[in-house]
Amino acid sequence: MISKSALIGQNVTVKEGVVVEDNVVIGDNCYLDYGCIIRKNVTLGADSYVGPQSILGEFCADFYENRANKTHPLIIGEKATIRSGAVIYGSTEIGVDFITGHHVTIRENTKIGNHSRIGTLGDIQGDCIIGNYVSAHSNVHIGKGTKIHDYVWVFPYTVFTNDSTPPSNELTPVEVEEYAVISTGAICLPGVHIGKRSLIGAGAVVLKDVPENAVVVGNPGKQICDTDKIKNHITGENVYPWPYHFKRGMPWQDTDYDVWLKENG
Amino acid sequence: MISKSALIGQNVTVKEGVVVEDNVVIGDNCYLDYGCIIRKNVTLGADSYVGPQSILGEFCADFYENRANKTHPLIIGEKATIRSGAVIYGSTEIGVDFITGHHVTIRENTKIGNHSRIGTLGDIQGDCIIGNYVSAHSNVHIGKGTKIHDYVWVFPYTVFTNDSTPPSNELTPVEVEEYAVISTGAICLPGVHIGKRSLIGAGAVVLKDVPENAVVVGNPGKQICDTDKIKNHITGENVYPWPYHFKRGMPWQDTDYDVWLKENG
Amino acid sequence: MISKSALIGQNVTVKEGVVVEDNVVIGDNCYLDYGCIIRKNVTLGADSYVGPQSILGEFCADFYENRANKTHPLIIGEKATIRSGAVIYGSTEIGVDFITGHHVTIRENTKIGNHSRIGTLGDIQGDCIIGNYVSAHSNVHIGKGTKIHDYVWVFPYTVFTNDSTPPSNELTPVEVEEYAVISTGAICLPGVHIGKRSLIGAGAVVLKDVPENAVVVGNPGKQICDTDKIKNHITGENVYPWPYHFKRGMPWQDTDYDVWLKENG
Repeated sequence: MISKSALIGQNVTVKEGVVVEDNVVIGDNCYLDYGCIIRKNVTLGADSYVGPQSILGEFCADFYENRANKTHPLIIGEKATIRSGAVIYGSTEIGVDFITGHHVTIRENTKIGNHSRIGTLGDIQGDCIIGNYVSAHSNVHIGKGTKIHDYVWVFPYTVFTNDSTPPSNELTPVEVEEYAVISTGAICLPGVHIGKRSLIGAGAVVLKDVPENAVVVGNPGKQICDTDKIKNHITGENVYPWPYHFKRGMPWQDTDYDVWLKENG
Repeated sequence: MISKSALIGQNVTVKEGVVVEDNVVIGDNCYLDYGCIIRKNVTLGADSYVGPQSILGEFCADFYENRANKTHPLIIGEKATIRSGAVIYGSTEIGVDFITGHHVTIRENTKIGNHSRIGTLGDIQGDCIIGNYVSAHSNVHIGKGTKIHDYVWVFPYTVFTNDSTPPSNELTPVEVEEYAVISTGAICLPGVHIGKRSLIGAGAVVLKDVPENAVVVGNPGKQICDTDKIKNHITGENVYPWPYHFKRGMPWQDTDYDVWLKENG
Repeated sequence: MISKSALIGQNVTVKEGVVVEDNVVIGDNCYLDYGCIIRKNVTLGADSYVGPQSILGEFCADFYENRANKTHPLIIGEKATIRSGAVIYGSTEIGVDFITGHHVTIRENTKIGNHSRIGTLGDIQGDCIIGNYVSAHSNVHIGKGTKIHDYVWVFPYTVFTNDSTPPSNELTPVEVEEYAVISTGAICLPGVHIGKRSLIGAGAVVLKDVPENAVVVGNPGKQICDTDKIKNHITGENVYPWPYHFKRGMPWQDTDYDVWLKENG
């Protein structure tokens, strides 16, 4: 069912069972796969893919008051890849080249920059600000109000919490600075500030602020060294800051990180 | 496809692709969103919302023996909000004002009281008893046979286990008493009893019974104090018992907790 | 929509909204439930069940280059039970009697043996080798390249990681030997080798190789004893090796483990 008021671009593929509601704008060359649902007031950039059964422009809380879908625009930039079963709420803005895994949830009032990725089962709780080139692997939980800066990596089963005396009405979300790496299964306690280029170890419970370049491991989390002590397990060379060694999908992938930094930093 | 034997109330909204099978009862003013599936023998209370692609009355194990859906009624009370992708099995009973997030699974032989909530990706394994006003945040795993009393809070990535020598045939589930708060990423080991008004810290591995009002943290979990030692990080005032400070959605929200307790306790 | 080039066996049930694309082979007595999607080049063995909204033969990465579904066959053996919302990629081979929970993801280039199970929300990241009679409970994350041998048990929220200096291009996946048991919430660090019949405790962070029959617990994980020290909490008898006490669904269920071992070991 495609609403007559929807603006559908050139060369858009629409598979069986797709729903496109009123006041939707679909850019050129988009691909709407089987049974995806695009609710009112969604703008989807050109060259985007929406997987089966995904829901764009999901109802915000006020829908349930009287079953009326108020105006909560969702804007997604060009070249998005949204895999099956993703649910992205209204009142949300996402940049270009966005990629999700399957069964992702992104709630209202979230802003996500360009070239960012949210893996399978990721759960973004709303009111979040996520920068550019942020890579969240599978099954990451980003609590309401979390702020994640550019070039941050988040690995599976990490949780960013926000309530230091639950249940309460006072949220103190986590903030993660540029280039930080949060390993698998880390729990970041409410209000902690995770410094630039820091490294949080697998399974760490982060109780307090993490300085720039620090390595924190364990439960309770303790700072054990700086990242310049972490070596490649084969070559013995320094691994961090990681942008010198990892380029795939990054803006410096066709150049040297230092060269890129001088031109863009 | 709506079965002719289904009883559909007044003023029910049925969106495209909805399936309602035989012997289903849908109360007045319900809203069945795109492509939700209501299998046989489901009774859904008035004023309820069922999100896209949700499945109510999911097959129990005996279906797979010979592909016959035996009689396993699912009864859901009035004013339910069941978000997209939820799967709720037959032989289950749920009270009024039930709310779920997305992609929730609730298996057979589970009883859930009134005003309870299961967040996105929640996974309830069956044979569970869950009380009234229980709030499970996203991605909570409630093992088979777990018993959770009224007014309990459970935060993301908490797991209630049930097998102390896996794999075995002897399940010893967890029991959680009223007003307890289980923080993010806690693992409750098989058979532990979590006392009234206790507080389990983030990432705690709870190995043994937790007394009333106790605070347990760490891996292995240790009792470090009572909840009266936990203060608001801004005001310095006592935070627990939490009902004195948190009222949203609770039955004492328009009164004082002590007044309510005297009248209802 | 059933493609005319699909080969559908005898006595196949096809519910409303099912999609079967070109070059698909469906064996006799299969049951394709509401709205499941079987993409090109899938072969599904006889007597299998595919739940609502499941996707078989999901696109591999090369689809997104030019929106062409290249040839990536998915082969699933007889008697599969694939519950709703599962997504299984192309270039994958799965043996007989495979069972999944809901909302499972299995990515490309994975091989799974016979009689194995992946529980609800399981996330297998591709390039994995999983043996026979492997039981993964709900919400297990199996990182790219992980190798799991026969008769292994994996409990909820366990993560097998693969990158020791993230982000990097050098994956060192985990390998788990026969009969090992990995309890709830364990994190297995990159490259660790988990020995035969070992037992990893709930919430353990496994940093180094685990010897045969060892018990490892805690964060950081430490070997505390051998499995012969673990007793049944009621009878006081030895529990491990578990095949002597647990037979359900195992090939020795109608005989004695030692007898079976002599004939098959």
